[in-house]
Amino acid sequence: MAADETAPAPRGKVTITEIARRAGVSVPTVSRVVNGRSDVSPATRARVEDLLRLHGYRKRPAALPSRAALLDLVFNNLDSPWAVEIIRGVEEAAHAAGAGTVVSAIHGRSGDAREWMRNLRARASDGVILVTSALEPPLHEQLRILGVPLVVVDPMGSPAFDTPTIGAANWSGGLAATEHLLSLGHRRIGLIAGPPRLLCSRARFDGYRAALEAAGVALDESLVVPGDFHPESGFTGCNALLDLAEPPTALFAASDQMALGAIEALRRRGMRVPEDMSVVGFDDLSEVRWSAPPLTTIRQPLADMGQLAVRTVLRLARGERPDSPRVELGTELVVRASTAPPAPAP
Amino acid sequence: MAADETAPAPRGKVTITEIARRAGVSVPTVSRVVNGRSDVSPATRARVEDLLRLHGYRKRPAALPSRAALLDLVFNNLDSPWAVEIIRGVEEAAHAAGAGTVVSAIHGRSGDAREWMRNLRARASDGVILVTSALEPPLHEQLRILGVPLVVVDPMGSPAFDTPTIGAANWSGGLAATEHLLSLGHRRIGLIAGPPRLLCSRARFDGYRAALEAAGVALDESLVVPGDFHPESGFTGCNALLDLAEPPTALFAASDQMALGAIEALRRRGMRVPEDMSVVGFDDLSEVRWSAPPLTTIRQPLADMGQLAVRTVLRLARGERPDSPRVELGTELVVRASTAPPAPAP
Repeated sequence: MAADETAPAPRGKVTITEIARRAGVSVPTVSRVVNGRSDVSPATRARVEDLLRLHGYRKRPAALPSRAALLDLVFNNLDSPWAVEIIRGVEEAAHAAGAGTVVSAIHGRSGDAREWMRNLRARASDGVILVTSALEPPLHEQLRILGVPLVVVDPMGSPAFDTPTIGAANWSGGLAATEHLLSLGHRRIGLIAGPPRLLCSRARFDGYRAALEAAGVALDESLVVPGDFHPESGFTGCNALLDLAEPPTALFAASDQMALGAIEALRRRGMRVPEDMSVVGFDDLSEVRWSAPPLTTIRQPLADMGQLAVRTVLRLARGERPDSPRVELGTELVVRASTAPPAPAP
Repeated sequence: MAADETAPAPRGKVTITEIARRAGVSVPTVSRVVNGRSDVSPATRARVEDLLRLHGYRKRPAALPSRAALLDLVFNNLDSPWAVEIIRGVEEAAHAAGAGTVVSAIHGRSGDAREWMRNLRARASDGVILVTSALEPPLHEQLRILGVPLVVVDPMGSPAFDTPTIGAANWSGGLAATEHLLSLGHRRIGLIAGPPRLLCSRARFDGYRAALEAAGVALDESLVVPGDFHPESGFTGCNALLDLAEPPTALFAASDQMALGAIEALRRRGMRVPEDMSVVGFDDLSEVRWSAPPLTTIRQPLADMGQLAVRTVLRLARGERPDSPRVELGTELVVRASTAPPAPAP
């Protein structure tokens, strides 16, 4: 019986020789595609990549007995407020597993990403932990072909990747922040929201709305202003809320950095936190323990997320499956000095 | 003529065979010592190490043409406020040189440091950048024997290492902070100092004193309180200054974190910054751009220090000498909203 040229071989079993035969090219040509080299014509590369995908080809890493394990931790930018917390968690868990942590930033530039990928290959990294959507889909695909396991740490709740992802419970955090303000007696609660294209922004907003609804407080759309998670947008958003005919008595900023911007806007108007306005943030960055006043916020377990990412990527490297493609670690309310009952009406 | 058994061979030229002959042990035994393995008796290890030191033995790294370069960046703790800025500078310069940055924390534990050293050897790191005095002298010695170049990044101004060191101009920073307050009209200027055992604390204090002297203001020892660079000590130190019979009208905190602690102490007493008290910090951490109020401070060029460390360690790896064993990069005053002229006497 003639072999069916289009039927895929059993997944993971196909060889380069087999791919070369099916593509009608030489074995070294397939090798060049697998290793991401540039000396292959675009048409040939496309045909070979389609076959590699179709047959679920995975490169087997060479045994490296004498080499210490390396994990790659990739950020878009290292000035992300989360960076150091995540590095701390990853380094700790990697060190415990005897692996080194290679930290990179690719600055959203495809050139940087490609160079990182070249170096990753040259140092034979044992696994990759990406923070948020730092890599474009073609590079995900290249990692898959190289057989390098990949885990995404995603404090933003980005749209689902075809990759194990570790996030935080954003909806529950939005709910807890708002419930805390309600329990203090606030009824007009402003929200400085995150960018609507990010799932985490929607989840935090939905948690805010659910808490209001559960308390029988009607959602007032005028109390919801947009932000982008950076301090400047918290500053601007807070000013917009203060300029309303009937401003809120409390506000929930969907990131700590926006909460700090809001506190500065209040200070410039001579308003005190929490006497004149309560403020709740989201993240629990180390710096908000000593903001003036220390910030009540929702803790994202960033270091724990980093640790879990290491355990997951090492499990993938051993050929095991993760328990679940997407894990959300719990968030929790941390009460400090920026929230209090509303001032009695004058 | 019989060889003089005690005269050292020309530095860097001695072989393991020669060391073995002089120590009266086998070549594999010397290899085990050089590679830091534990299966050598303490007496033999001591004798071999003495000979390695005496003859200036350096292991030649094997040529690794197919491997991407790796630099090791080692912190004591990753929750240092400087960590992320330094990582950013090192990663940027290393990436530009095609090298990966392996980030580690050794938590002041010798077990962690030894394990890091084992992994460093296994991954054949091309150079090490230490942040402050994170390694004990025996590990410095072991790096030297392994022939791995070492550079220290030292924002603290620790006592001199026998190693190229990159610091910041602490004295000039203390001078500039104090001159700024003097130029606003302050004459009673408090100092929350750093730990006296650190050279950077002394340099900042001497800069403060020099500025006062140049302005003809007598140093009042009661206005100088001790701190440890952490926010809590800024909080306590500021309270001590406020409890004086005649408190200062301005204060210079020798770290940003202590400045944040001081601002919180002022806020709790209902005092405003800068109306009731001017505050200057030291470091320019990214978070103080959005403290309430944004902090006037002395900028330490942490990312630049990291970049220079990479260039220096790569120069050492090529066998070149650094321009100078200790380089201090300039600090600069950044004026924001936490300083103003003193309030008119009531």
